[in-house]
Amino acid sequence: MGGVTESIQRARATTASYSITMRIHAGTDPAVIGALAVKVAESGGITTALDIVDSHPDRLVIDLTCSASNAEHSTEVVDAVETLEGVRVHKVSDRVFLMHLGGKISVESKVNLRNRQDLAMAYTPGVGRVSQALFEHPEDVPRLTIKGNSVAVVTDGSAVLGLGNIGPMAALPVMEGKAALFKRFADIDAWPICIDTTDVDEIVRTVELIAPGFGGINLEDIAAPRCFEVEAKLRERLSIPVFHDDQHGTAIVVLAALKNALRCIDKKLPDARIVVSGGGAAGSAIVQLLLAAGAVDVTVSDRPGLLNQDDESLTPAWRELAEKTNPRGLTGTLRDGLQGADVFIGVSAPRILEPEWIDEMAEQRIVFALANPDPEVDIYEATQRATVVASGRSDYPNQINNVLAFPGVFRGLLDARATDVTTEMLIKAADAIASVVTDEQLNPNYIIPSVFQPDMSKTVAKAIVDCVPKAPTKNIPMTGAN
Amino acid sequence: MGGVTESIQRARATTASYSITMRIHAGTDPAVIGALAVKVAESGGITTALDIVDSHPDRLVIDLTCSASNAEHSTEVVDAVETLEGVRVHKVSDRVFLMHLGGKISVESKVNLRNRQDLAMAYTPGVGRVSQALFEHPEDVPRLTIKGNSVAVVTDGSAVLGLGNIGPMAALPVMEGKAALFKRFADIDAWPICIDTTDVDEIVRTVELIAPGFGGINLEDIAAPRCFEVEAKLRERLSIPVFHDDQHGTAIVVLAALKNALRCIDKKLPDARIVVSGGGAAGSAIVQLLLAAGAVDVTVSDRPGLLNQDDESLTPAWRELAEKTNPRGLTGTLRDGLQGADVFIGVSAPRILEPEWIDEMAEQRIVFALANPDPEVDIYEATQRATVVASGRSDYPNQINNVLAFPGVFRGLLDARATDVTTEMLIKAADAIASVVTDEQLNPNYIIPSVFQPDMSKTVAKAIVDCVPKAPTKNIPMTGAN
Repeated sequence: MGGVTESIQRARATTASYSITMRIHAGTDPAVIGALAVKVAESGGITTALDIVDSHPDRLVIDLTCSASNAEHSTEVVDAVETLEGVRVHKVSDRVFLMHLGGKISVESKVNLRNRQDLAMAYTPGVGRVSQALFEHPEDVPRLTIKGNSVAVVTDGSAVLGLGNIGPMAALPVMEGKAALFKRFADIDAWPICIDTTDVDEIVRTVELIAPGFGGINLEDIAAPRCFEVEAKLRERLSIPVFHDDQHGTAIVVLAALKNALRCIDKKLPDARIVVSGGGAAGSAIVQLLLAAGAVDVTVSDRPGLLNQDDESLTPAWRELAEKTNPRGLTGTLRDGLQGADVFIGVSAPRILEPEWIDEMAEQRIVFALANPDPEVDIYEATQRATVVASGRSDYPNQINNVLAFPGVFRGLLDARATDVTTEMLIKAADAIASVVTDEQLNPNYIIPSVFQPDMSKTVAKAIVDCVPKAPTKNIPMTGAN
Repeated sequence: MGGVTESIQRARATTASYSITMRIHAGTDPAVIGALAVKVAESGGITTALDIVDSHPDRLVIDLTCSASNAEHSTEVVDAVETLEGVRVHKVSDRVFLMHLGGKISVESKVNLRNRQDLAMAYTPGVGRVSQALFEHPEDVPRLTIKGNSVAVVTDGSAVLGLGNIGPMAALPVMEGKAALFKRFADIDAWPICIDTTDVDEIVRTVELIAPGFGGINLEDIAAPRCFEVEAKLRERLSIPVFHDDQHGTAIVVLAALKNALRCIDKKLPDARIVVSGGGAAGSAIVQLLLAAGAVDVTVSDRPGLLNQDDESLTPAWRELAEKTNPRGLTGTLRDGLQGADVFIGVSAPRILEPEWIDEMAEQRIVFALANPDPEVDIYEATQRATVVASGRSDYPNQINNVLAFPGVFRGLLDARATDVTTEMLIKAADAIASVVTDEQLNPNYIIPSVFQPDMSKTVAKAIVDCVPKAPTKNIPMTGAN
């Protein structure tokens, strides 16, 4: 009945994001452990942990944790386990939801508050001296407050992951996750600011008004084209850096990966024919960064087909893109654009690239299919047809993951007390990420480092700091030499 | 020359908020340690720590930490120490400023992010399942996000401690301190929101727009009468509790302390003649809570003298107060109001109460002089004249400190998923604080517990929770029984 093939097929698609723990009561027959593991595998799940929790004369209590491919699949795995004789699944826990109980971040005090003396220094009346000093020397605020290390993770909840406009409250778990990543990878104190409006001016004004407490603004999951306007206005009004990660974080990592991919096929960026599928937030940022980094022949494909400046029907955002791109004046479909192209970069929608079209690209070709969680083309199919393939998925080589960039970018911005994000910084950050892969390490299956690469954020931060004039010197003396 | 008396006098006024550490190089004569300590005492400082950091054949390196009464006094202490033969003060560090380096709070991740599996659960793609579930069941947001435990500490920086309108950035250290207290005393995750406007509607709109990520709003150091309007509008618009600590936190603790003070003089609240000096944010909140708790004869004194409803010249806020108070239609000065009064409550300005006026109050009298850091009357003088004296100072008995109330209040509000703060809650919170002092413990020098009283916030929280109908039940199943 092809069960094994099918289960292997399905196992490929399981994910920790559908991970369950079954509390199982079973007979004391020692063979039961093996039987459980086999049953899970047969039903397409992957066992990641198995603990004997308790042992009674008549039964074993077992916690079996496994991942499945989706919610229905979880149920199927549980049902399959229950078909075993003498086995009863007592309780099923969903690890992802359990992990979110009570939220994923916390605020901690960095100072001890053990007695009245501590209170008198950290709070009134001592804190008044610090506030008074900062009133007189506002340039010292970053040094004596969280402003020196804090980032607001700002969203309106209008374009959350693949879920769309789910609103600011439902977006909160994503922003908390982002804040957790900021801490984990760059020791930055980030706090979610979920804004209850999709009006550009209200978003801008709100961020402007709360900016005094933050050293940087990370815009997140705001729908295009609104995000462009929000970012542009905030950059104009604020004296702290503003960075829309969905745009520039993605662009940095794509540029880094593309540089290394081109090293693999021995081609230079200015000589590459590049087709970008998707003219939204990520797509337009990628295009602009590629051009700034030296790319020349970039063409964008979106719903109207290949964006061409002669097309009168384009939206303002697409028109702006069309005017900067498509130097050969191509028209037609994505497939037309891919004829002889060296690079496909997809930041658009699942399954819009037929595997066969890859064959029509240049002989040595690069495919980045970054739509998440379902890419533009089946990654396995793509690897059969292109020299270098990258995706947003962690279960294939060459994962394009913003975590490679944004923690280090903000670490650098904060350390340098930068007031703005420049294109030079984005290019230098990409170079820094690309350079982590040495010539010896570089191959089509390893063009980009893992997000767990040690010191990744330090490397990126240094590249950013090097772009900024020296930080201002200290003003409030805290110590005096006699 | 009366040096000892003077130094004792001054020592009484030293504070940890002016605490310095001197790095001292001295000769190896063992007597030097004693000489240093004596010199510090003679110059009015209090030595709190003395460490031999290093010992060389020809010199000792000593860190001496002491508190002084103000910045000039610190300098005097250092100068005095340097008059000792062979002693050189190498460096002076200000402990309060050192404590503020880098800010006083941090954001921490509550989840491990060790590997790709962790990322896939805490961030994409796993987090998408949680966001999708919350989009469908918004009532579960507090359970699966920080909203269930987070408080925004909101200020416009317009009335910070005794410093006045120093703006949102200079207010940041105070708000961080508040956040640290929230964590220390009630395990609440509070984050400073310093708003760069003093326009009521802009403040209200900003807080309204960022409310999705928070479970409660703590207004802080916003000038009166703006704070009344901000609070009223926010309470109307938000479905999370809004609490202006300078008003209601103070009122709760004053009511608690007053109840116990009245127990000491065997008087009931409805029978007490009470004069409140200061009709601002704290004063009006105190008056309203006293009246709600059963007080009848309350008169307010402010710049125009005793507030009387026949006075046509009063501001709207004072007029509102006058209409609710002064049942005997008193007119004149604060001193006039105090004739025969049982209770003086000052939340106004330093030194506005002459000690002799206390003698003109009722025979058994209560004086709360709460202006901070300098009270309405010298506390020592007051203790010579009144039965019960309380102040905001930690160096005298009966410190009226908001830390007794706000952590527990918010703990209760969050635990109960309260949508509003009611007057009943404030009264019950005051009762809870007062009840911690048993009949056996109660005396004129112990009417209110220490802020370090164990379980204080739990006691207050329980009182709040008891005022709220049962929290809603869970909706998103995370575990299933088979």
